[in-house]
Amino acid sequence: MSNPVHTDEQAKVVIATHNQHKFEELKSTLSDLPFEFLPLTNWWQKPVSETGKTFVENAVIKARYASQRAGIPAIADDSGLIVDLLNGKPGVHSSRFAGEHATDEENNNLLLERVKAKRKVNEPVKARFVAILVYLEHADDARPTIAEGSWQGSIIESPRGDSGFGYDPLFLPLDSDLTVAELGPSVKNRDSHRAKAARNLVQLLSDRLKDRS
Amino acid sequence: MSNPVHTDEQAKVVIATHNQHKFEELKSTLSDLPFEFLPLTNWWQKPVSETGKTFVENAVIKARYASQRAGIPAIADDSGLIVDLLNGKPGVHSSRFAGEHATDEENNNLLLERVKAKRKVNEPVKARFVAILVYLEHADDARPTIAEGSWQGSIIESPRGDSGFGYDPLFLPLDSDLTVAELGPSVKNRDSHRAKAARNLVQLLSDRLKDRS
Repeated sequence: MSNPVHTDEQAKVVIATHNQHKFEELKSTLSDLPFEFLPLTNWWQKPVSETGKTFVENAVIKARYASQRAGIPAIADDSGLIVDLLNGKPGVHSSRFAGEHATDEENNNLLLERVKAKRKVNEPVKARFVAILVYLEHADDARPTIAEGSWQGSIIESPRGDSGFGYDPLFLPLDSDLTVAELGPSVKNRDSHRAKAARNLVQLLSDRLKDRS
Repeated sequence: MSNPVHTDEQAKVVIATHNQHKFEELKSTLSDLPFEFLPLTNWWQKPVSETGKTFVENAVIKARYASQRAGIPAIADDSGLIVDLLNGKPGVHSSRFAGEHATDEENNNLLLERVKAKRKVNEPVKARFVAILVYLEHADDARPTIAEGSWQGSIIESPRGDSGFGYDPLFLPLDSDLTVAELGPSVKNRDSHRAKAARNLVQLLSDRLKDRS
């Protein structure tokens, strides 16, 4: 079993994402860990199908695949938007709510349509972004380190703002008058579900590595 | 979505285990939660196959099945023994290490055999019991509440003690001169991986229910 804390040079860890922006973001938020982070690049022959019904299952599936291909420990994430009024939807289907290759705009429009059909006048449409990050030491690691982060808020009636992606223009964080797309990256990198999950992962992995030494 | 904290009578939650002893143990350790716990009994037509490669995947699979059958929230567990020297084995295969219907004795003997082949003289064989407990509010809940507990110790050279089950006669908890099978149920119910996971679940679920109200 590889054992990062005992080696002289920094242990290499692969981050299981195709998205260059997400890779850089995670690399930066996880920089307190004694790891050298590698992107998936050519190890990843085809995108892994996210067949899990929970965020944690999807993240474990991706991390296992990456670790298997790369032969080193892996970190993967999964995230989505949970709207109480819609019984938790779009949930694990957030990025493909309006179909397999749906654009952000199509997903946003479908969300607004569904919410409109169910919302009660003058009641905020409570929602939360959720992110799960998992670390697998090797492909057969039975005990992933699992970190979670959430961002509470509500869904507004029409999109506002140009920053970010996904449902950002519709999501008003609790105690904010601006949507995530209006708040911009510096607030998002500090307060978002993914930022909180990353901080939790740093804590949990530091404990795991210490526990080992 | 069911919402236990908002109902007048206690919400019913099914515990996904066939084992009467485990049901009683979990019911007792989770008694601080505002739930009425039900055993699976006749909902469970056949044992769910535990196809996951991680404890968390197995626990989620069992909880989802139970929640689907019972139509109410579900709690399930998965647990096992991780031996560093054996690259984490028997891990998720702990209860069927020596085969699908292996007895505790067969599993224990195989473990001793594998350890003997690899151990270094005078070095303790580090091991830990791990338990995962998950709560799913409904079968499509994308965000299970996940609690973990572990119990560190080492594997001795031959079984000692009559209490407990599984690998208890071979497991010497850290700072103990007695095996789990010698220590007996009162220490086990207080210090075990499952007891710790249950305490963590009570804390996490209390937060989840509060968060909702």
